[in-house]
Amino acid sequence: MLEHGGRLHEAARRHGIPPGDWLDLSTGINPRGWPVPELPPEVWRRLPEEDDGLEHAARNYYGCTSLLPVAGSQAAIQALPLLRPACRVGIISPGYAEHAQAWRRAGHEVVPLAPDDIPCTLDELDALVIIHPNNPTGHAFDPARLLDWHARLAARGGWLVVDEAFIDATSAMSLARHAPLAGLVVLRSLGKFFGLAGTRVGFVLAEPSLLEALRERLGPWSIAHPSRHVARLAMEDETWQATTRTRLAQDSTRLARLLAAHGLAPHGGCALFQWICTPEAARIHEALARRGILTRLFGSPASLRFGLPATAAEWGRLAQALAEVMA
Amino acid sequence: MLEHGGRLHEAARRHGIPPGDWLDLSTGINPRGWPVPELPPEVWRRLPEEDDGLEHAARNYYGCTSLLPVAGSQAAIQALPLLRPACRVGIISPGYAEHAQAWRRAGHEVVPLAPDDIPCTLDELDALVIIHPNNPTGHAFDPARLLDWHARLAARGGWLVVDEAFIDATSAMSLARHAPLAGLVVLRSLGKFFGLAGTRVGFVLAEPSLLEALRERLGPWSIAHPSRHVARLAMEDETWQATTRTRLAQDSTRLARLLAAHGLAPHGGCALFQWICTPEAARIHEALARRGILTRLFGSPASLRFGLPATAAEWGRLAQALAEVMA
Repeated sequence: MLEHGGRLHEAARRHGIPPGDWLDLSTGINPRGWPVPELPPEVWRRLPEEDDGLEHAARNYYGCTSLLPVAGSQAAIQALPLLRPACRVGIISPGYAEHAQAWRRAGHEVVPLAPDDIPCTLDELDALVIIHPNNPTGHAFDPARLLDWHARLAARGGWLVVDEAFIDATSAMSLARHAPLAGLVVLRSLGKFFGLAGTRVGFVLAEPSLLEALRERLGPWSIAHPSRHVARLAMEDETWQATTRTRLAQDSTRLARLLAAHGLAPHGGCALFQWICTPEAARIHEALARRGILTRLFGSPASLRFGLPATAAEWGRLAQALAEVMA
Repeated sequence: MLEHGGRLHEAARRHGIPPGDWLDLSTGINPRGWPVPELPPEVWRRLPEEDDGLEHAARNYYGCTSLLPVAGSQAAIQALPLLRPACRVGIISPGYAEHAQAWRRAGHEVVPLAPDDIPCTLDELDALVIIHPNNPTGHAFDPARLLDWHARLAARGGWLVVDEAFIDATSAMSLARHAPLAGLVVLRSLGKFFGLAGTRVGFVLAEPSLLEALRERLGPWSIAHPSRHVARLAMEDETWQATTRTRLAQDSTRLARLLAAHGLAPHGGCALFQWICTPEAARIHEALARRGILTRLFGSPASLRFGLPATAAEWGRLAQALAEVMA
């Protein structure tokens, strides 16, 4: 298994600080997520059914008619490489490591690519996996450029896979409304923007034949019934979505400014996190952890990812800790 | 996809009866399941973590130290056949159809076996899949006999897979406390006895090397965080479990007597359902459905499965409908 953010229990043990005392900025999950109401008891008892309104809500939310709910985009990340014979796949790097691991494990040749290397390499690839905006670098592409790459790949039976886990707050960049197109696979998730990572609900937007193959492979009832129920309600709540888009834009800017004020000007970011390359990354990560603030440390390149604080007290705590650590 | 019980929305549409007006006896799920309390908000927001106490609770509940939580035993049913090279697998028949489908899809040769055919066929098999007690027939085996079959299979690298989805109310029959043994795979689920089918939580009890291969294949976070939280609490609630075992035994007997009183003496059953073979199965199924009572119809052999009513009103409604339909 790969390492991930959000390993709070582990950090709590290592630093001797109880889990409840941490400010966890390690994940990029909206800390003020969609507020889950009380649920009807039957969602725990009954098996989920496919015609429960979730797909309808998702079609409206994404502006796409051809989609499949999955148990988090992780489920799709693992299954997609099994739907192609061994091929050569370019994967944006650095980026969320589960993609490369899944394609390698399925026997494909993985070519890690920096964004600038993609255009000159594209003609040698059968598939290209983009994380958009990228995690952890925050790198974003012009959607027209992605569509051009898709057209070149699809013309020879290739795939463009776009993992849009962090795109909801800036959805004008999304390729969702262009789906379904042959050879285009868009991955979405309710984890980050909706702050519902615990529910394990994501979607694959793609042509029906690919979705059917995926559906067979994933089998029935892979998403919990309470999760389907909550996901439907959250996707229907357009008022909360609009308010949250505005607030995340403000908070993200505020985080970038706070970090810059302490000598940690971000090298990239998006609405849900900021990313800082610094040879001091490990020292800063450790010093913040000793103060009960968990960030995500990356080794190559040496860098840190900061998620958003939720409350005035949390913003104050982060500012105070940065002042001490960066003094 | 195979057909299953619990397709209430579909039945509601077909018969023009709103979903809320049905008495759904089609599933074998305990209708008085473990009562889910209000949940802490962070279970929706945060990714689940492996060291959250669920495995500890499960080890106590099953009396087995080597286990893996999965997103319903369905997830294990699909993944297990992928962990062996193509082989010859005997599967109890009639039985829950997902087993045979999963082994066939993975390229194995499936031999459907009636319980009486197993002893003389065992030496020609690489793996044997038992559903215990069987669904829908309710057939149960002597655990000593299952252990003998396991020993014969394991001696030549074979597997005995025992799906114990319906065993919790009669757990003395379970092989759980004998696991881990090389070549023994026990599948358990919180869907039926705990009445938590919506949560999608099950367990595989097997030797560590097999669990590790399964864990890699299923990937991280396949179970929703609220589901893990609820599952842990339910498995720790020994008072509820004891009360429920007693009540299910009473209700199951009551259901068998009620059916027999209307000319439908069960051919088999367990604590959670009764099973009746009758050439009239389709007619009775349809006549009950017109009265808003959903049962599970099987074609081969022509038979019906009845789950348990929950309340006095539901028992009365079933009795009334049976009196009309079987008049």
